[in-house]
Formats: sequence, C-alpha cells, structure tokens
Amino acid sequence: MSKPAKPLHLHPDRLFPAEASQRAIARQLYAQVATLPIISPHGHTDPAWFADNLPFANASELLLVPDHYVFRMLYSQGIALDALGISRADGSRAEVDPRAAWRLFAAHFHLFRGTPSSLWLNHVFHEVFGLRMRLNAASADHYYDSIGEALQRPAYLPRALFKRFNIEVIATTESPLDDLRHHRAIRDSGWDGRIVSAYRPDPVIDPEHEQFATALRAFAGISGEDVYDWDGYLRAHRQRRAYFASMGATSSDHGHPSAATADLGRERARALFARIVSGNFDAGDAELFRAQMLTEMAAMSLDDGLVMQIHPGCLRNHNRQLFHRFGRDKGADIPLRTGYVQALKPLLDRFGNEPDFSLVLFTLDESTYARELAPLAGHYPCLRLGPAWWFHDSPEGMWRFREQTLASAGFYNTVGFNDDTRAFLSIPARHDVARRIDCAFLAKLVAEHRLDEDEAYELAVDLAYRLPKQAYRL
Amino acid sequence: MSKPAKPLHLHPDRLFPAEASQRAIARQLYAQVATLPIISPHGHTDPAWFADNLPFANASELLLVPDHYVFRMLYSQGIALDALGISRADGSRAEVDPRAAWRLFAAHFHLFRGTPSSLWLNHVFHEVFGLRMRLNAASADHYYDSIGEALQRPAYLPRALFKRFNIEVIATTESPLDDLRHHRAIRDSGWDGRIVSAYRPDPVIDPEHEQFATALRAFAGISGEDVYDWDGYLRAHRQRRAYFASMGATSSDHGHPSAATADLGRERARALFARIVSGNFDAGDAELFRAQMLTEMAAMSLDDGLVMQIHPGCLRNHNRQLFHRFGRDKGADIPLRTGYVQALKPLLDRFGNEPDFSLVLFTLDESTYARELAPLAGHYPCLRLGPAWWFHDSPEGMWRFREQTLASAGFYNTVGFNDDTRAFLSIPARHDVARRIDCAFLAKLVAEHRLDEDEAYELAVDLAYRLPKQAYRL
Amino acid sequence: MSKPAKPLHLHPDRLFPAEASQRAIARQLYAQVATLPIISPHGHTDPAWFADNLPFANASELLLVPDHYVFRMLYSQGIALDALGISRADGSRAEVDPRAAWRLFAAHFHLFRGTPSSLWLNHVFHEVFGLRMRLNAASADHYYDSIGEALQRPAYLPRALFKRFNIEVIATTESPLDDLRHHRAIRDSGWDGRIVSAYRPDPVIDPEHEQFATALRAFAGISGEDVYDWDGYLRAHRQRRAYFASMGATSSDHGHPSAATADLGRERARALFARIVSGNFDAGDAELFRAQMLTEMAAMSLDDGLVMQIHPGCLRNHNRQLFHRFGRDKGADIPLRTGYVQALKPLLDRFGNEPDFSLVLFTLDESTYARELAPLAGHYPCLRLGPAWWFHDSPEGMWRFREQTLASAGFYNTVGFNDDTRAFLSIPARHDVARRIDCAFLAKLVAEHRLDEDEAYELAVDLAYRLPKQAYRL
Repeated sequence: MSKPAKPLHLHPDRLFPAEASQRAIARQLYAQVATLPIISPHGHTDPAWFADNLPFANASELLLVPDHYVFRMLYSQGIALDALGISRADGSRAEVDPRAAWRLFAAHFHLFRGTPSSLWLNHVFHEVFGLRMRLNAASADHYYDSIGEALQRPAYLPRALFKRFNIEVIATTESPLDDLRHHRAIRDSGWDGRIVSAYRPDPVIDPEHEQFATALRAFAGISGEDVYDWDGYLRAHRQRRAYFASMGATSSDHGHPSAATADLGRERARALFARIVSGNFDAGDAELFRAQMLTEMAAMSLDDGLVMQIHPGCLRNHNRQLFHRFGRDKGADIPLRTGYVQALKPLLDRFGNEPDFSLVLFTLDESTYARELAPLAGHYPCLRLGPAWWFHDSPEGMWRFREQTLASAGFYNTVGFNDDTRAFLSIPARHDVARRIDCAFLAKLVAEHRLDEDEAYELAVDLAYRLPKQAYRL
Repeated sequence: MSKPAKPLHLHPDRLFPAEASQRAIARQLYAQVATLPIISPHGHTDPAWFADNLPFANASELLLVPDHYVFRMLYSQGIALDALGISRADGSRAEVDPRAAWRLFAAHFHLFRGTPSSLWLNHVFHEVFGLRMRLNAASADHYYDSIGEALQRPAYLPRALFKRFNIEVIATTESPLDDLRHHRAIRDSGWDGRIVSAYRPDPVIDPEHEQFATALRAFAGISGEDVYDWDGYLRAHRQRRAYFASMGATSSDHGHPSAATADLGRERARALFARIVSGNFDAGDAELFRAQMLTEMAAMSLDDGLVMQIHPGCLRNHNRQLFHRFGRDKGADIPLRTGYVQALKPLLDRFGNEPDFSLVLFTLDESTYARELAPLAGHYPCLRLGPAWWFHDSPEGMWRFREQTLASAGFYNTVGFNDDTRAFLSIPARHDVARRIDCAFLAKLVAEHRLDEDEAYELAVDLAYRLPKQAYRL
Repeated sequence: MSKPAKPLHLHPDRLFPAEASQRAIARQLYAQVATLPIISPHGHTDPAWFADNLPFANASELLLVPDHYVFRMLYSQGIALDALGISRADGSRAEVDPRAAWRLFAAHFHLFRGTPSSLWLNHVFHEVFGLRMRLNAASADHYYDSIGEALQRPAYLPRALFKRFNIEVIATTESPLDDLRHHRAIRDSGWDGRIVSAYRPDPVIDPEHEQFATALRAFAGISGEDVYDWDGYLRAHRQRRAYFASMGATSSDHGHPSAATADLGRERARALFARIVSGNFDAGDAELFRAQMLTEMAAMSLDDGLVMQIHPGCLRNHNRQLFHRFGRDKGADIPLRTGYVQALKPLLDRFGNEPDFSLVLFTLDESTYARELAPLAGHYPCLRLGPAWWFHDSPEGMWRFREQTLASAGFYNTVGFNDDTRAFLSIPARHDVARRIDCAFLAKLVAEHRLDEDEAYELAVDLAYRLPKQAYRL
C-alpha cells in the first residue's frame, strides 16, 4: 500500500506508430479529426441521466460498479463481486463502503496494464477529472475524494458533460416495452442535446429469454395489439418501430446468439409463432423464430427506413453459479464461433439487392473479417460492416479490423466507429482511441505509398464523422 | 465532377516498410528480383488473345467489364451492373456507352482506396499507359481517350505486351472439353511466347454444376470414351490429361466447395458414379463424388506427372437474384470456413508419401494457415502451399500468409507467387506487389537479425522465380 | 557441397524491433530479464539424464534424431527418415552412420531459414558449443567433430549444463505408471538441481490409446487398486497423484483431442467406465470418458493442489503409413480446430469459481485466443492462459498470442513462458526467444505511450520469472 503513485501522462502521440515518418503523418491526420463532434449511433447510456440531469454519486458508483469490463478483470483474479458492491440478481447488494470498493480497485489497477480499460480510465481520470498521478493503492483516496467532489459541481452534471464532450448525437437502446418517457422528457425540456433511441426488440423476439412470456404480455399492453396472433405481433412491432422513429430513432438492433436468418413464408412462420407463444417449443424452434424475425425486421426496415444492426455470436451468462447469484451482464458473456455466409443467405436472398435497405453487421469472431464479412460487404449493396466490437474494441482489435477488411470491403463499406458503451464518461476516450488508430492505420498506408496524403485526410474525416452519420442516417 | 485530378505517382519504395533500416534492406533485395522474368503458373487469361493477337477494344472492355474485383465494389455501393454494361446470364447486355461506364467507374474510384485493385490499376495506368494524373471524374475522359488510342498501337497487342511484361511462361486454365485450338494455333504460328494450359475438370466432375449433364455428353464426344461407365470415365480423364500435357500443361486444378477427399475402393466408387450419372443423387453423393475424384486425379498425377492444385472453400453465386439475371462470376462468390486435416486424410493416406506426387494447396480460410496447412506442408513430402489467394491476394494478405506459415512450413514448402488472374494487364503489377511484400518480409527478418543478408538474397530469388518454376515443373 | 560456410553471429539485438526507439526500450527491458533463472514448469526432458549424468553420444543423437521439429522438415522435402537413422515403430533403426545423417541435415539446413528451429539451433551452436561458422554442407564435419568432442567433456554432462543454463526448476512429464525412479535417484544423489515430475495420465485415461488395456493392467499393478472398478480407478489416480506430489510434482497435464469436459454424476460415470473397461465402447463413449476424467482431475486438484493443464486439439499420427513404420511422435501431429466455450462449461459450471483451483489452458487454434480463451480467462478466477504452444512457439506465434489475448485477459491472466520441449540444449534458447519477444512487445506499448517504463520493467520480470513460478506453485 505504500508504493507512491507515479505521474499520470496522456502523451499527445499515444497510439501512434513509433517510427518517425508514420508518426508525423498520423499526427497531422489526427489534428484534422481530434475535435470533430462525436457521432455515437449505438450505445447503452441511460436516457434518464439526461432527462433528470442529477449528479452521479461517487467514483465507485460511476466508474466501477456499472462497468463489467472492469469488475470482471478483478473477479478473474479472485476478488469477490460482493467486495465491490456489485448488485445481485435479487436486487440486493452487499453492504460495502464505496470507498473501500474503490481502494480494492485501485490496489489492483495494474491488472489492466495494456488493456483498453486502462486507456479509457486514464483518459477519464486525466481529461475529465484533471488527475495527474496514476491510480494505485497510495492514490486511491485522493482519487475517490477528487472525483466525488467534482461530481457535485454543475460542470459534471450529465448535460454539461454531454456538451463538454462535443457529442452531436447519441443513440441509446431501448426495448419495445419502453415508453421512451426519458426521451420525451428531454425533448419537452427544451434542452438541445440530441439523444435518440434505437429499437432493440430482443426480449420480445427471443423465446429463450427468461422474461419472454412477461415481455410478451407487456408488449400486448403497450401496443394494444393481439400479440399472440402472428399478424398482431408483427403489427405491434411496426407500431412500436414507428413510435421509436417518431422519437428520433434511426435504427434497430438485434443481439442474437447466431447470425441465422430464415425466410419461411407466411404460413410456416405463422405456425412457428403459434408453437412459440404456446410455450411448447424446442431450441430449434427458438433459433428458427429468431432467424425468421431478422427477416421480418428487414422487411419493416424497407418500409420505415430504420437501419438494421445485427450483433450476433455471444453466449450470455456462461458462468452458471454467478448468473444465479448476480444475474445478467456480469462479465461472463463469451463469444462464439459465428458463421455468416449461409446464415445470412435467406435474408439476403430476399432483400440483399434492395437499394434502400441498410444492414450493419458486427462480429465477435474475427476469423470472419477477411473470410466472410468483407467479401459479403464488398458485394451486397445493403451491407456495411460495423467496427471492431466489444472484446475487440481495443487498439489491436481495431487495427486487425482495418487490416483484415480493407482488401475486400475497402473503407467505404464500413461505418466508422461506434462506442457501444454504457460508460458515459469514457465516450470521448473511446472515440479518441478509434480516431488515433484509424489515423495510425492511414499513416502506414501513406508512408508505404499506397495512399496519397490528401486521400488520407479525406478518409480520416470520413471514418471519424461522415460515415457514421451517413450509415445511421443521422 | 469539377475536382481536378491530382498527380499519379508510383513511388519506388511503395509497399516497403517505412522504418529506414528495413526499407534500405527491402530496396536492395527488391533490386535483385524486380526484373526477373514472370513465371505465371496459374491464371485465367484467354489464350485466344495470344492466338489471334487482336487489339483490345477500349478502357471499359479491357479493365472494367471483365474484372469482377472492380465491378463488385461499385455494385456494393449501389451502382447497377447494367449501368456498367456487364453481360447478363442470357448473353445480352444493357446498351451502355463504354465511355459512360468508364466515367461512372472513374467517379467512384475513391472506393478502391487502400485495396489491391487500386494498386494494380494504378500500376497499369502508370506503367502500361503512361498516365500521370490520378483517375477521377475530372480525368475520366482523358483516361478513356488515352487508353483507347494506345490500344490501337502495335505495342499494345497481346503478344507485344506479353514480351514487354517479360513473361517467361503463363498457364491458362481450360476444361477437358476444350480442344486447346488456341494453344495449338499459338504453337503453329511460330511465335515463341510460352503459353501452356492447365487441366481444370470441374464441369465434368461436379455433379451439382448446372451444366454437368451437358458437359458429360461433350466429354464423351471429345474423348470417344463411354464416359457413363466408371472405367470409361476415368479413361477419358487420362486421355484428356495426356492431351493437355502434350500441349504443355504441367498441372491440373480443382475448384471444389470443400477440400474433402475420399478413397472408396473400386466397387463403391463405381456404384457412386452410377448414381451420379443416373441423376438420382443427393448432396452427400455429390460431395463424396468430388472427394473421390480428387483421389483419382492424384492417382493419375502419379502416372502423368501433372502437378495437382486444390482451390477449395468458396460458395459460388451467393446472390441468388444476381445469379439469375447475370450468371456466374459476378463478384458474389464468398469464402467458406474450410477444414483440411480430416478432409485430406483419405488422399494423403494413399499418396501422401509418394516421392513423385506434388499437391499444391490453396485456401480462402486464413485461420488454417498456421493451424492446418503449414503443419501439413511441414510434414508431408507431397504437399506445398500455394500463395495467398483471391480475397487474400493483397499486401496484408500476403504478409499474413508468410507470417503464419513460416514457423511450421518454412519458405521452401511454399511455391512462390501465382497471380490467378484473367486481368492480363495487371499481371506485372501483381507479381510486383508479391515481390515487394516478400522482400519487405525478408527485410524485417534481416533487420531483426533472424536471417543474414546473403540468405535473404537467395530467398528473394527463390520466392520470385525458382520456386514457382520448380513447383510447377515449368 | 563446396559453398563455404559464412560466419555465424548471434546479434545482441536479435528479435527486437528495428525501429530505433522501440529497440532501445526493448534492449533495456531485456537487460533486466536476460539472466534471470529459468523456470521450466512444463517439458519433456528425460529425468534419466540428470539421474545418470552420462555424456550425450554425438551431434546427431543429441540434436537431430530426437527432435521431430527438425526431422519432419527434412522429411517434408523428401528425405527419408531411415536416411537420418530415426528409430522405427518396432524399435529397430536403419544402419546409418550418424556423421552421414548429420551431413544430410547440414546440407539442408537452409530449409529452416526463418523458422524457430533455426533460432534455437543457432543459439545452441553458438552459445553451447562456441561454433562461429554457419552450418552447411561445408561445415558439417567441423560441427560434427566439435560437438562430439565437447560432449565428452565434464562441462557438457547433463548436470553441468543444467547449472550452466541457470535452471532454477524443471518439470518433466511422466505417466502414472512411472515409478519416478530417476527423480528418486536424483533426490537420493544429493545433487541440488530441482527436477520435478508432472502427472500425465493420458495412457490410462484415453480409451483410444493403442496401449490403453496394457496401461490399465500396469495401473492396477503400480497402485494396488482394483482399477476396473470406478471407485478403485479414481482411488488409484488419487494415490499416484499423491505420490507424484511427494516427489515434487505441482501439476497434472492432459493432452486430449478436444477440450471437452463432462460432469455426468456418479451413476452415469460409473456406467460409462464399465463400458470403457469392457472394451465395448464407441468413439462417443471414449470422448465422453476423456471429458468426464478432466472434471474428475479437477476435483482431485481441489484436494491435492496440483495445478491442472489442458493441452487439447491435436490429431496425432496423421500419416498412417509413417505411423505403422515409425510409430508415434514423428512430426505428423496436426492441429485441429478447437472450441472451448461449450467444451469447458461442464467443468467450469462445477469448479469455475473455486478460489483454490487453477487450470492452465493451451491451444493450437489461434482463432480462439481473442474470441474464446482471453474472454474466459478474463472472467473465471480459476483460469490462466498457457503461452503460445508447439506450432505457435515462434516469434510470430508469441507475438500473436500477446496481441490477441491482451485486451480481454491482460498480462496477469497468463502464466509466462514454458518451453514444452525434450530438446534439453535448446531450453535457454527458447526462454531467450520468449523473453526477447515479450520485451519487444512491451517496448511497443511503451513507445506508443500505452504503458510507462516502470510498468514495463515490472511486467518483463513478471512474465519471465514471477508468473510461471506463481502459476505453477513452484
């Protein structure tokens, strides 16, 4: 505990290649994009923050407890979730002094060396809170106090931070069961921050979700449709999508275990749905229903113009004991090998050539970048590739994404960066990392004479700003 | 349309590492191989070009219409194939002014930034046509006119270009149904360019090819054998292989959906073939028949000395609508996950240790480089690895190939580069890229003191020239 | 044969990045770890060497004949195993003058250019034997003589080399049937070199091992238990593990075709075992039994504290003909695609959160690094990642391991390096390569301002020394 904390720097050249000629180019490219507004078309911030504009509680509640990137690493080294005050499945929490939790985190901050979490957190510490010593056991209290005091100041209220972060637009993610009251409150408040929703219907689409039956009942309630009838169920989706769109949403999002799609035809789909709502279905039915619903969502996209996103390939809640005690989203979601070529064919056979349809694909299986995703996106007019996602949202992961998709998809079949985070304070850090890596990547191409500088400048701005705006119709 | 075109450079250090010590070594290595003759042992140029030696028509017909690398990228961004004058499945074409198609291409040339297509095309523009402004909307007409005029000059006739490109030997690819009349005409003409064929029997081996029945009839006609009888069918192959060999062919090539091989024994093979020719077979039979035929081809290789190549793992014609309207080879072929370890075992169990058998393996699934292909090639005497192929025929792809095969296969179980292209004018560009990347890779090993310079010089020449000649017995 | 041999250098900066700023950092980091004692917690050296302390015979017997890394490469280029004097399945060997075998190896040493074998061998030649000309046909006899003479000197006896190599502790690997007489002899001799065993029960666990029935009989003999009864069989394991632990073992090791685990419950496990010992089982039973035994071994680890290792995913003896003539371990083991997420779930469901259980995972399928292994190790307290293994134990492979596991697992969920070799003389070379690559990797992070230098120093020592000691409880 006695090791003194060292100075904390954010070097202006961080993440740029060490070789001088590339670094010089990267620096110049980055200068063009460093201060561009942030387009955040996909994420998980809580709209209540911006509706209520109340102060965040303290360092632990803000930065530790809600961030499963962070506490899963501590857990992997033997620190109990209860010692950090992580909330349990039943809603209770161990009685933990948030300062004690913070000290535990601080004493183990070396575990994050080299990881994206350390990049993001140090950026937040340095840029948002003005801290100048590294976090460790010795500086833990100083951090806890400094952050705690800052959070009480008006400049640290959610709306002030939104403005300070230069966010042009941010999308949150809500289920069809959400009445979007916070979005409405923001709109009614007259505040001019642009917060939009995204339509995420997984709970009413995934028959294996533990709350599917409950969700379906609520879906009936909120839509007024007979959602136990196939046509009524589809009408309920159309209606909620329209409502989301009226509240600014420009996209839907689908987090499925696989990328499977299906195109069953009306009668088979209706019969499948009947099995699903009867509760008398097997795993194959559930997978087929999710697959069919992706195609149904695509059909609706053609009508209402919502950009469609698929985030497939994660086995959620891998740790059975932990799931029972602590519930979902506790850092135990593990990627799966994921196939796209056969999986997407039914949907693409039907809509792949539609000029107005737009489908953004993500993956947790990097072996598909060069083999499947880039060739698909380099052909189908409707397809675009989402950025390196989740476990791959790191400097190395972003580099691999560019390196493995460039040949077949080029830059223009990708959608630029999106942060996919609920860690609001880390959003500038995440976009900064992405911009730096893209500039570093472009600098390499320039230094190796594969791209002229003027092209690289244009691309740097395209990747940081124009492409996400365009791809998400924002 | 008004943005003026910028100068077009081909920097002498392009594709070399930016770091000075490596760049200096790469430069010196490259100087040894830059002007070596081109060995092109596997490709898809049209022998009629060299037999007839007629001028190419215009820029669009030469560079845009036949190159699915190029038009699939345009298509992926919403440009209709009809707007480019791509020929349709029924042989018709939209009436498009080739200059208008070229302008469309030029206005979207930025889509290719960073891709291998831009490397190849800029090389062709600069080196073959002497163009010195980048292609864009403003320079489109200048390009179209300059290229059009050049193509009428004798120096731009196919045979003249062949000599100018310093091609020592090129292999085209023909089906057993081809009478090789163009190869015969070239030989009879007394011209000394070395154009050989390669035996590509997919249409008479793949029962799921839409023209299999027709092809089989033609196979009977051209061979005079009863190809509906298993022994006759095999005799027809032997006979056609012998004819191809007599016309200079040194290899066979097999483009199958998977790398599956089988060794059924005579009676089971005969029975399977009977089901196949009856038309009364299922997908499993078709796969098993292709698998069996790879082993049969290997057996014939042992007798006639043709080097065998397997190009597996592509799902052809993924875009159903496009296939119906425009037919094959329209940029909608998508790689599949491909396994080699179990798949090749039946063939290798039989012929893996034969000293005179040579089998060159390719892949579209890079995850197999280090895991499967390099360990197999680093053990079996008959196996060699073909270069980074198709979607991976990029600077990054070539680098990954070397980086991931070196440890287990070394350099000498690989066969150097082959271009696999029908884009004749791009052949020097493609070999130049490969030579540069191999020199850059070797330069890194030298700079990191893993290889002495004299070894790197020898390897550079081996990879560019000696290994392909040796591996393909040319 | 007349090409004279060139000088052999071991450059002090080998394997460091060429770029000057990174090289300078790497050099300084390496200076801290270059002379740290070697911790070799997993390998295949023969304890008889240290028990008997007799001289090694000659260059071929020491460096060529036992090293399948080396002779498989020669075999892949058409050199017969008999020409090298490799021992056959029946125990016989072709009568080959070891000097002639050495000459054959020397004349083909260029095949290893760029491979890890050349790094290791050149290190051995230069550092252990003081050779200063590169190995080729011209220097073959000089090598053979120099090495032969050296081996007769006391300084080249196994124990002297062990001390010279600065090995703090080395683990060999023995089956439960081994009485560990050599380990006992070493202990009884009073020599202070620390040689421990590791418990490797594959022959009595894998029903598909060709000597399973024999091994089971011997297992009964050595344990005195009724190993044909499920409880007796488990007791025999517990007893032998205890004996191994008493002889210094701190780990068990399991080399299975897949990473499958199972948790059948007592009655189903007992019934499965009955089928296994009856000999009346199918491939599914064998796989399930291996899977169940991993969970049983984990249960025992909880009691006796042995660290558990899984080395999965290799198809052994792929070359059928060679296996029949030459037997196991002849360079024909080929990696398989390997899944961990579902495979490990049964074991992890039971023991994943046990604070005292430690499971080190290895892979031959690099596509699992970022997708499966790092996310699993970055969550489960019991999991640690073993280093790049076997086919991936190369500079490139080690770099990919770090590059692809860092984001999700960090550095501290990995266990540092282990050499996994029977090539005793290459052990310092292998650890040196690993230390250099880790320092190069850390230098990149420092140069790109992702890590401060003091953190990198600490990490360099952690990776080279502290983590393997800690992870293996040595």
